[in-house]
Amino acid sequence: MRRVGIVGGGQLARMLALAGRRLGIRCDVLDPAENPCAAPVARHLRGSFEDTQALDHLVADCGVATFDFENVAVAPLQHLAQRMPVRPSPRVLAIAQDRLEEKRFIRGLGIPVAEFHTVDSLQDLRAAAVQLRLPCLIKTRRFGYDGKGQWKLTQLDDCERVWSELEGTPAIAEAWVPYRREVSLIVVRDAQANHRLYPLTENHHVDGILGYSLAPAPTSCEMQAEAESLAFRLVDALDYVGVLAIELFEMDGHLMINEIAPRVHNSGHWTIEGAHCSQFENHLRAVTDLPLGDAAARGYSVMLNVIGEWPECEGLLACAGVNVHDYEKTPRPGRKIGHLTVCADSVEELHGRAQALLRAAGRGELWAGLQPRIAAMVG
Amino acid sequence: MRRVGIVGGGQLARMLALAGRRLGIRCDVLDPAENPCAAPVARHLRGSFEDTQALDHLVADCGVATFDFENVAVAPLQHLAQRMPVRPSPRVLAIAQDRLEEKRFIRGLGIPVAEFHTVDSLQDLRAAAVQLRLPCLIKTRRFGYDGKGQWKLTQLDDCERVWSELEGTPAIAEAWVPYRREVSLIVVRDAQANHRLYPLTENHHVDGILGYSLAPAPTSCEMQAEAESLAFRLVDALDYVGVLAIELFEMDGHLMINEIAPRVHNSGHWTIEGAHCSQFENHLRAVTDLPLGDAAARGYSVMLNVIGEWPECEGLLACAGVNVHDYEKTPRPGRKIGHLTVCADSVEELHGRAQALLRAAGRGELWAGLQPRIAAMVG
Repeated sequence: MRRVGIVGGGQLARMLALAGRRLGIRCDVLDPAENPCAAPVARHLRGSFEDTQALDHLVADCGVATFDFENVAVAPLQHLAQRMPVRPSPRVLAIAQDRLEEKRFIRGLGIPVAEFHTVDSLQDLRAAAVQLRLPCLIKTRRFGYDGKGQWKLTQLDDCERVWSELEGTPAIAEAWVPYRREVSLIVVRDAQANHRLYPLTENHHVDGILGYSLAPAPTSCEMQAEAESLAFRLVDALDYVGVLAIELFEMDGHLMINEIAPRVHNSGHWTIEGAHCSQFENHLRAVTDLPLGDAAARGYSVMLNVIGEWPECEGLLACAGVNVHDYEKTPRPGRKIGHLTVCADSVEELHGRAQALLRAAGRGELWAGLQPRIAAMVG
Repeated sequence: MRRVGIVGGGQLARMLALAGRRLGIRCDVLDPAENPCAAPVARHLRGSFEDTQALDHLVADCGVATFDFENVAVAPLQHLAQRMPVRPSPRVLAIAQDRLEEKRFIRGLGIPVAEFHTVDSLQDLRAAAVQLRLPCLIKTRRFGYDGKGQWKLTQLDDCERVWSELEGTPAIAEAWVPYRREVSLIVVRDAQANHRLYPLTENHHVDGILGYSLAPAPTSCEMQAEAESLAFRLVDALDYVGVLAIELFEMDGHLMINEIAPRVHNSGHWTIEGAHCSQFENHLRAVTDLPLGDAAARGYSVMLNVIGEWPECEGLLACAGVNVHDYEKTPRPGRKIGHLTVCADSVEELHGRAQALLRAAGRGELWAGLQPRIAAMVG
């Protein structure tokens, strides 16, 4: 029996564990919370991520360890890695959790990233703002997510305010990228260097959090080929095992990496129904040395995040082709508590279904943005 | 929060609970086993089905009760039904668990069934054999499954042996039906009399146990219409709520009911990946008064049961389009321990994928039977 230890027990661990249940792969999750999201479908080890005793339980019971978020400290994963395979490796995590290291690594591979500068002082900040021109972005090097730890600098006079808000946290300044749209790539690689790449996904953020995704993203064959070359170069250079999510900007038909996440990713949730083998199943297959599954799309999908509170369930389920994913989390403003995926066999069908879904979800205001993007999916 | 009590904790309860997890519907399973199949994904109440205290836990904690197999006694369900909604109703269960009642009920609706006679004595048995002509089938009225409790009577001289093997168990004699093939229908109905019908499934038995199913079954529009009329008449007459499985014989392009199962059914397992909304999700939706989901097929599917022991997992997962469902049961000869569903967008693709799957599953001997049936799916 295969058994996977997951550091972190949030919704990503939950969906990994659910995929594992079907395959006969058991998951043990380590999480400090009393009742984390993954607990109902996995064995829950309660403990902090630095709790050596809890970590050693994973070592004793599991054949491999992974993690469901990138803000875990590297040290506990290194403790594990000395005792069992950790996939992806702590080295990858160390790169991905530091925006400076990440950007240097990517640029070192010759893959385009936005111009950037280290910010360790008010002087650095001012110099970067002048060099990059305004507006530019200031981001903490570590622990940023969902738009937190980010500032858009629009005038030099704001440097002092941003610097004081940083409270001395190491940061970087990034050039403002006038991108046409945001897309993401979900790639999976196994220890034998086999790869599978899901079709590009188009992402739309609302208030700094992913609002909805469309897949396959309306795109050209050339762009999918460029994405593939970029993704494979990246995972091979990292000797990556598991699912890697790559967030990209599209500019003039070319791609630039915004950031990477060394794990399954919100923008890949549509793969549960919208692809033959989901990102969750493929991550488990990769880390347990099982053959990778088919990443091709099944029809056309739109994924909508449920944030803060649930719309009425009856209305959602009355929509054709809608799949409800409830993470069984306590609703709280700004919290991701579930997602909805609507699938269709044709773009025309998706158009009608997505509109009905937004209405039922009380998110009709998104239709003006979504409608033209669905229309663009044809061809 | 919706919460469903399930009497029985086998693989059907497990797959119901897994579907529920996604929707935010919790399932509590009552099962006497120490670690039943559904326990890792549901709350497990350990107790016999007659354990009033355990039943009252379901009453206290759940909004509705259902069951995952039809051989549970009616009395405990009546105990529940006096205290909470039980869906489908104990009355339906009482009919479905007795072949005589079931056949009388179906015939009473003007729906074709094989000719049958009650067998309560050796005299009855002889008389039935003469009237029905040989061969005919002798079946216990209750507790039969997977070909158990059945005899094929080929000569009158065997009456005494069969009668002695029955050991006085009430039985029926059924005419031998020279059917062309076996198909099944999965229908779901809610308390407001809304229906959804999955496409007909074609079933092939091996050693008395379902071996594999194809869906949608190669069939004509007229036959799907006949199936629909028959299914809707049946569930309406039973005031049925939930999923009902109907096993049918096809004879000269017409359908005759073989038996019904008042629950989700092995021949509907393909709906997890092969339909927009699975039989498991639709059963939960129906019993919790949520809108029914889309029962249309997504592409073409073949479902293969895993019986007795697991083939090597690597080989199975290396097959394109294959979904592995491991029930986490201890392997034992003749025991259903999992199933495999292979899906494809076209019949041609299914042909190649199904052949690869049979080979990887070590069931190559089934290909001679399956191959022409897949070929028949076109048109």
